[in-house]
Amino acid sequence: MLLSQINGPEDLKQLSVDELASLAAEIRQFLIEKLSVTGGHLASNLGVVELTLALHYRYNSPTDKFIYDVGHQAYVHKMLTGRMDQFDTLRKLNGLCGFVKRRESEHDVWEAGHSSTSLSAAMGMALARDLKGENFKVVPIIGDGALTGGMAFEALNHIGHEKKKLMVILNDNEMSIAPNVGALHNYLSRIRSDRTYLRAKDEIEILLRKIPAIGGKLAKTAEKVKDSLKYMMVPGILFEELGFTYLGPVDGHDIQKLLETFKQADNVEGPVLVHVLTTKGKGYKPAEADSYKWHGISPYKIESGQVLKAVGNPMYTEVFGQTLIELAEQDERIVAVTPAMPGGSGLIPFSERFPDRMIDVGIAEQHAATMCAALAMEGMKPVYAVYSTFMQRAYDQIVHDICRHNANVMFAIDRAGFVGADGETHQGAYDIAFMRHIPNLVMMMPKDENELRHMMKTALDYNDGPIAYRYPRVNGTGVKLDEELVSIPIGSWQKLREGEGIAIAAIGPMVQVAEEAADQLKSAGIKVTVINARFLKPLDSAMLLEVVKSHGTMLVLEEASQAGSLGSAILEFYAEHEITGIDIKLMGIPDRFIEHGSIKEQREQVGLTVEAVVQKVQQAKAEQAFAYGKKTLPS
Amino acid sequence: MLLSQINGPEDLKQLSVDELASLAAEIRQFLIEKLSVTGGHLASNLGVVELTLALHYRYNSPTDKFIYDVGHQAYVHKMLTGRMDQFDTLRKLNGLCGFVKRRESEHDVWEAGHSSTSLSAAMGMALARDLKGENFKVVPIIGDGALTGGMAFEALNHIGHEKKKLMVILNDNEMSIAPNVGALHNYLSRIRSDRTYLRAKDEIEILLRKIPAIGGKLAKTAEKVKDSLKYMMVPGILFEELGFTYLGPVDGHDIQKLLETFKQADNVEGPVLVHVLTTKGKGYKPAEADSYKWHGISPYKIESGQVLKAVGNPMYTEVFGQTLIELAEQDERIVAVTPAMPGGSGLIPFSERFPDRMIDVGIAEQHAATMCAALAMEGMKPVYAVYSTFMQRAYDQIVHDICRHNANVMFAIDRAGFVGADGETHQGAYDIAFMRHIPNLVMMMPKDENELRHMMKTALDYNDGPIAYRYPRVNGTGVKLDEELVSIPIGSWQKLREGEGIAIAAIGPMVQVAEEAADQLKSAGIKVTVINARFLKPLDSAMLLEVVKSHGTMLVLEEASQAGSLGSAILEFYAEHEITGIDIKLMGIPDRFIEHGSIKEQREQVGLTVEAVVQKVQQAKAEQAFAYGKKTLPS
Repeated sequence: MLLSQINGPEDLKQLSVDELASLAAEIRQFLIEKLSVTGGHLASNLGVVELTLALHYRYNSPTDKFIYDVGHQAYVHKMLTGRMDQFDTLRKLNGLCGFVKRRESEHDVWEAGHSSTSLSAAMGMALARDLKGENFKVVPIIGDGALTGGMAFEALNHIGHEKKKLMVILNDNEMSIAPNVGALHNYLSRIRSDRTYLRAKDEIEILLRKIPAIGGKLAKTAEKVKDSLKYMMVPGILFEELGFTYLGPVDGHDIQKLLETFKQADNVEGPVLVHVLTTKGKGYKPAEADSYKWHGISPYKIESGQVLKAVGNPMYTEVFGQTLIELAEQDERIVAVTPAMPGGSGLIPFSERFPDRMIDVGIAEQHAATMCAALAMEGMKPVYAVYSTFMQRAYDQIVHDICRHNANVMFAIDRAGFVGADGETHQGAYDIAFMRHIPNLVMMMPKDENELRHMMKTALDYNDGPIAYRYPRVNGTGVKLDEELVSIPIGSWQKLREGEGIAIAAIGPMVQVAEEAADQLKSAGIKVTVINARFLKPLDSAMLLEVVKSHGTMLVLEEASQAGSLGSAILEFYAEHEITGIDIKLMGIPDRFIEHGSIKEQREQVGLTVEAVVQKVQQAKAEQAFAYGKKTLPS
Repeated sequence: MLLSQINGPEDLKQLSVDELASLAAEIRQFLIEKLSVTGGHLASNLGVVELTLALHYRYNSPTDKFIYDVGHQAYVHKMLTGRMDQFDTLRKLNGLCGFVKRRESEHDVWEAGHSSTSLSAAMGMALARDLKGENFKVVPIIGDGALTGGMAFEALNHIGHEKKKLMVILNDNEMSIAPNVGALHNYLSRIRSDRTYLRAKDEIEILLRKIPAIGGKLAKTAEKVKDSLKYMMVPGILFEELGFTYLGPVDGHDIQKLLETFKQADNVEGPVLVHVLTTKGKGYKPAEADSYKWHGISPYKIESGQVLKAVGNPMYTEVFGQTLIELAEQDERIVAVTPAMPGGSGLIPFSERFPDRMIDVGIAEQHAATMCAALAMEGMKPVYAVYSTFMQRAYDQIVHDICRHNANVMFAIDRAGFVGADGETHQGAYDIAFMRHIPNLVMMMPKDENELRHMMKTALDYNDGPIAYRYPRVNGTGVKLDEELVSIPIGSWQKLREGEGIAIAAIGPMVQVAEEAADQLKSAGIKVTVINARFLKPLDSAMLLEVVKSHGTMLVLEEASQAGSLGSAILEFYAEHEITGIDIKLMGIPDRFIEHGSIKEQREQVGLTVEAVVQKVQQAKAEQAFAYGKKTLPS
């Protein structure tokens, strides 16, 4: 076992290239075994075993900077930098993070979770290095999928212009999370398939010698012909035109070839792009056969590749996908738009049923949003299906192109609230706070999957501008699904039970938490009002004005940033109506980033639990009993 | 005069191509005269006179869709579509908008203000067209600068893949608002300069015939050589590789050539990119000589080109630029980062003094933000200088890369609040609302330009994470500037005057409004407390807790979205501290988009004036006198 001898990258450097190959096999075995228990990003990590070994073999981390784009393909990097013994805790609370994590190791220099940031990070580090007169390598490692994100192009454009010395590793596995789309992908495929580009080099030189010497008027043209032959020898002309030296394509599972290419790259002035071909899932047959399914995987049986799925009610995501088909059957204006997440968004069945009305734009949240505005303006009914956290990329387009145009775009905001093991880069904590202040927008959240269906109908029937429904990354409540879908009046909340003195306004899964707390409190003789505050914008004015008449306290319960979300909106409402007599207690996500763990653990960390609600209500009740006359009064 | 005969595009179609050229001259004369009085985007519109004429001549607006990127180069389009008589009101309240505006004309099909949205809009319209089985042309017109924005690349990548029929006009004037940077720009320059690309075509064919017939092993290679020659004949190979048919470059001031190229484009299946070369400021010497200065221009004297500048105190922008030089003299870690706005951000003097420490990334707000995070992590002190409205593009990068990493990035947020004539696409209304909820961020706004200088020092001295200062697009107050700069304690507000019962918490220019209102109220016998709430995050807890003891009412005065900004933060603070006795009155920008006009007019529209504050305070005073015991009490 070589693996047991590796405590850091320096140990790697004692090995021969042949030993590295043996080590690669051991690493694969380790990952396949460990992840069969914990789950995690198996396929992408199996794909970069040799690449990671070669990088750590030739370069000196952390002096040289490895910048992993997205960062879920850094398991091998973690193994080689002293964290092998923590893999049992992968993606668990207080355990090893599934992404690069600076506080875990000095070898982790850049964190991510969202794609396409690595080139900008690399440019920043290279600029700082040169300004400080230091000397180290900067090596961003970016997938072909991530390269299609607009900010990656912005960075390429800047790097190619400034000619900074850095080495981009393009990890081309023909597949990001979903099958890639895009012209760039087609371009890379052409390079992959046409290996004669490289082999032809010698033949071309022989051929050139056969062209007779040409003088006079044609001499210059002849020179240009010879020049132009470089296009044939350099398959990555697109990158060359952007100012990079292109090297490759190179077999990403051949350590010797990788090392030779790195050596070549080190001798180049300015930016280099090394095009590395890898196979996702390499070395584990089930993952090689279906790298899409095995991108992020639950625990599985190693022998059979059978995935051990938790049994439960259908996820909100699935209900969304099925309901969209139902609606689209009846309304041919509906088109679904996804930024490279057809599977994660539950849209695979839709894409099979309506291939022409399914638009996957690649990793391009901005383009998707603006395109939706234009689709709507031409009379279509686009549904922009996107995770809350990734929608952050489209904030400007939502303001400037969708809401300012008051375009009839429907937002299906998935993974709103805590997301569990993916942790802080993926939490859906901010969408209410960054959307609520945008004029013209309507925003909803259902208390269960049945209400989600009605909200989807509501959105379709609404023709006065953009409308959003957000839903969590959890199983539904198992409630019966109504067959007939009906529109919910815009801005109408729902009083679920009538109590005395204290009201709880909750959204999404927190409605159930409120209901359970109310049950417990009832046993203790306290009757609270429970409201399903399903419209985040507009609020239900009538109900808010009515509640204040008979309730001195309102708890606002939301799995969203406490700053700027529903609680904040309710406070503003009462302030605008000059009502000061009601005590609003905010229960949301506090002002810090919440790390990985289970959703249950994340809720516990921030007090979004039945117990916390019960306690808060009891406390409020005690205050009320004591409070008559105590309030600060105007001077 | 041909111009007087043009009431719509159909009138244009009666003219000969020679007459169009005469009309172009008349249009230039019209624009030069009108804009000498109103100001506006002169240079870019002078550059597209022939292009706009040719488009309207060949195609049928509004059936065919012209989509102007950014939309400030649509003056000629407005003239040709029945709005010539409105040019005296250009960019004035209720007057002709400086950008494309849907409610003005059916010929205005897509509004913008931010760059790089046109290709996504075009893709949406083309998709809708094909889904509906309709048949019209979609023609986005995009500048070479806008093409570097990441979302434009996302759209190119998608369009090239889907092969939708549309015609992109690349309006290449070698200059967007600022001199262009970027590898793409360099690439376009090579095409512009190397016209032999085109001329060589015939010569190459002669040359090819001189290559002897080759058989056997080399035959295939010989074929590849011939194939590769297309690279020489097609200058736009980069676009070709992305799936477009490239046509050009074509002289954008030669109407006949433009029409011929459009004809050629119409015969192409799939997406076409027509590369049009234009000269900004064409036909007006001062603007041709300095198209940068003449991009957006104040009123001027036609003969001399002398710009009539309003006299006034230095703008905040200028004070920022000068102060940054002072700080950078003493701290070599400071670098300035701008997304293509070195002039607008007041950084030209800085770039002259510290060329190596000035980083212009092109129109690339996302890349700029993430690069700043990396610069900070390597020990630099980056200042990200950006307009509030354009910072919207970087929201995700601010959350995910800067704040989550807790990187020491300084944000210089210019044009915070109303911006005047640029109108609703450019208002700096949302930055507090979309940033306040992000963990780890400190955010400030100075009451005058002297305080801005101290805040810049404060930001430099602060080393615990990201810190922002925002300032308005107005002249400073003329206050004396302190020479010695000192750090302001983080989270400390300033009580400017002590009153009774009613406090006004204000930020930025609203502090002066509050002070003037307080003066007027004092004459009327009402003494109010005035607070400079200069930290938007964190708030001054001590002062908020103290104020509540002796004040029953607080007015929060901010030139920012009323939803989610400072007022909202104060409400949350009191809610979290379970304080209900204070009546908070919110005075901010209401929940709608505010159109163009002067900043003064925009403030009047939403009640952010001295008069409105005086009235609100008097009303509050009356309520207080009446209110004892009236408040709703807990049940």
